[in-house]
Amino acid sequence: MSPSEDGYGSLIADALAGRDDVFEIVERDDGFVQASHYGPDAYLAPYRRWPSRQRRAMRFVRGRVLDVGCGAGRVALHLQERDHEVVAIDVSPGAIEVSRRRGVRDVRLLSIDGVDGSLGAFDTIVMFGNNFGLFGGFAKARRLLRRFHRVTTERGRIVAETRDPYATSDPTHLGYHDRNRARGRMGGQLRIRVRYREHATPWFDYLLVSRDELETILEGTGWKLARVFEGDSGLYVVVLEKTVSEGGSAG
Amino acid sequence: MSPSEDGYGSLIADALAGRDDVFEIVERDDGFVQASHYGPDAYLAPYRRWPSRQRRAMRFVRGRVLDVGCGAGRVALHLQERDHEVVAIDVSPGAIEVSRRRGVRDVRLLSIDGVDGSLGAFDTIVMFGNNFGLFGGFAKARRLLRRFHRVTTERGRIVAETRDPYATSDPTHLGYHDRNRARGRMGGQLRIRVRYREHATPWFDYLLVSRDELETILEGTGWKLARVFEGDSGLYVVVLEKTVSEGGSAG
Repeated sequence: MSPSEDGYGSLIADALAGRDDVFEIVERDDGFVQASHYGPDAYLAPYRRWPSRQRRAMRFVRGRVLDVGCGAGRVALHLQERDHEVVAIDVSPGAIEVSRRRGVRDVRLLSIDGVDGSLGAFDTIVMFGNNFGLFGGFAKARRLLRRFHRVTTERGRIVAETRDPYATSDPTHLGYHDRNRARGRMGGQLRIRVRYREHATPWFDYLLVSRDELETILEGTGWKLARVFEGDSGLYVVVLEKTVSEGGSAG
Repeated sequence: MSPSEDGYGSLIADALAGRDDVFEIVERDDGFVQASHYGPDAYLAPYRRWPSRQRRAMRFVRGRVLDVGCGAGRVALHLQERDHEVVAIDVSPGAIEVSRRRGVRDVRLLSIDGVDGSLGAFDTIVMFGNNFGLFGGFAKARRLLRRFHRVTTERGRIVAETRDPYATSDPTHLGYHDRNRARGRMGGQLRIRVRYREHATPWFDYLLVSRDELETILEGTGWKLARVFEGDSGLYVVVLEKTVSEGGSAG
């Protein structure tokens, strides 16, 4: 990812430097754009100010942890404080730099596709901040879930956050879901890029799923839904645990 | 302007309806994007909360007024309260609708290019909120200034707000100015569009000028710089008055 593509890294670096005019702009491939203010709460919030669903789900994190899409390192730093060994990965060079500067000890420039056994075995894989979305789509999610099965210990867990895309009555979004399905994609399989000032990331697929869709994705991957923590606006965090006998053999 | 193009009208309607997640996204033709929160202050601020430069310049508004680019009607409403007769124009159907609903009595869907003698004679033309930008570029500004000369009374004034584009050390902006000049455009002749949710306005030229550039534009148009009220970040409001003998003959 070149500097001109590292919109996300540039915005968290600017926010950390104290700029108060930092807005994350997400552009969807139908032309829909949305901005949100990227303030201190987005990257520096201490654990006690995290949303309840995230705090409750964190209790299920145990052992050696892989933090997928670590951003500015909020989750990795908290887990380090709780004496977890953490490997944090992100595709944004700027995010890696910020996480390192803020004290994340083992942080690597690596995409979710690059996760393999060379990282060692993990007890928990965390995907906070909607990072279930990095699974991208139905087939890729199943392939990566099988791979995550292999790189986790027997008591392995995945703690991942997503949003039910159908928790809206907005006709613009509902129409987008319909067109996605007509193209053979999942309804909430957003194609987006992040823009910040002169930077724009490459376009990428970002998957939002309902709970039913999630359960369908899990079938045969060796993972089952163990817990759900609901939040506002369709947001929820899931804890996935290994089934007894399935999964991990393919993909 | 179709509904899908009326990004600006849509955002002020949503802001007026009380949505607190309304952000105006401006996209420049070099890919630079910027978002700003469009809160109540942007459209409902009472006169006493306006920036000092605007309040001071308002004292120079007299008689019958043309409000060019009226937006949500903030300036027109204030002038009506002070018993001015006001004609307010905007190219955004949504802005027109909002202004009408908020009480602007004479508000018309009309671009700056459509201003002519059929609107009657004005004592003052106001272009607040950076609306000097609607002059678009050097040649168009001079043509419109000559036309404004003809549609104003002998004591005619223009009260217009702009921003010195060179009041920045940001290399992204300075590079943009350089490339503009290399193409024969003014440094601060931005080519932009406004995006909001699924809406995007057509691309248009929006002109920011330094005070020196402004004086060059005015030469031979029949207008002279009478007052300047400086604000932060290079923002300033000018009062233009008619010269004795020039202008109004061409264009």
